[in-house]
Amino acid sequence: MKPMLATELNPALTPVAFLLGTWRGEGEGQYPSIKPFRYREEIRFSHNGKPFLIYTQWTEAIDTGQPMHGEAGYLRLVGDRRVEFMIAQPIGYAEISIGRVDGRRIDVECASVGRTPTAKPVTSISRSLWMDGETLRYELKMGMEGAPPAPHLTASFRRVD
Amino acid sequence: MKPMLATELNPALTPVAFLLGTWRGEGEGQYPSIKPFRYREEIRFSHNGKPFLIYTQWTEAIDTGQPMHGEAGYLRLVGDRRVEFMIAQPIGYAEISIGRVDGRRIDVECASVGRTPTAKPVTSISRSLWMDGETLRYELKMGMEGAPPAPHLTASFRRVD
Repeated sequence: MKPMLATELNPALTPVAFLLGTWRGEGEGQYPSIKPFRYREEIRFSHNGKPFLIYTQWTEAIDTGQPMHGEAGYLRLVGDRRVEFMIAQPIGYAEISIGRVDGRRIDVECASVGRTPTAKPVTSISRSLWMDGETLRYELKMGMEGAPPAPHLTASFRRVD
Repeated sequence: MKPMLATELNPALTPVAFLLGTWRGEGEGQYPSIKPFRYREEIRFSHNGKPFLIYTQWTEAIDTGQPMHGEAGYLRLVGDRRVEFMIAQPIGYAEISIGRVDGRRIDVECASVGRTPTAKPVTSISRSLWMDGETLRYELKMGMEGAPPAPHLTASFRRVD
């Protein structure tokens, strides 16, 4: 979507305006079934004057710069600080996550994770995003068929733009 | 996601390489419950060397340039020309669509449409994308609760980049 940063922010987005910008940082991944790993990441939240944020992110290997993961979607705010987060992932997921913004912290839990026939059997994703001083941090927990939700990703960022 | 157009295309994507680039055009919308409308649109398919295309699009009003819709997601090709298309929409949808590529034509039907509590009750989306000479065209049909799938959008594009 065409971001229009010169456009005035839709007033409905004031509670999540702290996310706007380009963020760079590093993260760590873990899960019971895999070897822990680290990654470099860029997250961008932009807007075009409509009442949602435009979300993109990518990660790459710290040593080689090889692309790893990516996500794209939209975050909208409805009613009394309720957050709706729609996210597509190239590994075969389309996620609807619902939650709340409270101060400079957002917590969402997936209401549904659509999966393609070849995607891994992820059944739940929960995400928290919050400001810790000038640092943006997130945590992501994931559940799979036969496995309860477990910590998967954690990362921290500085705003670069 | 960080597109890397200088990177070599993943060989798995050869059958859908015809989509790569930035496309501009115009479209028409209709649905039994709404007044027909026209829009300007840009679609972009890029890649980063991994076996999926990165998809973004936006539409705007032809007269005012006001932003209208947007979508973002990923298209991947698996096995024998099967297509998996994961799409997020800011109006509260996260779509998994499955289909095939046949020559320079792709047809997908949604396997699931995740919806937020405030989204309209869309139950099905089917998309066709094809080359007509040097023109890229698409058609989108949509079904809603209590309404069978009906033509909703059609548009045509020229490659600009």
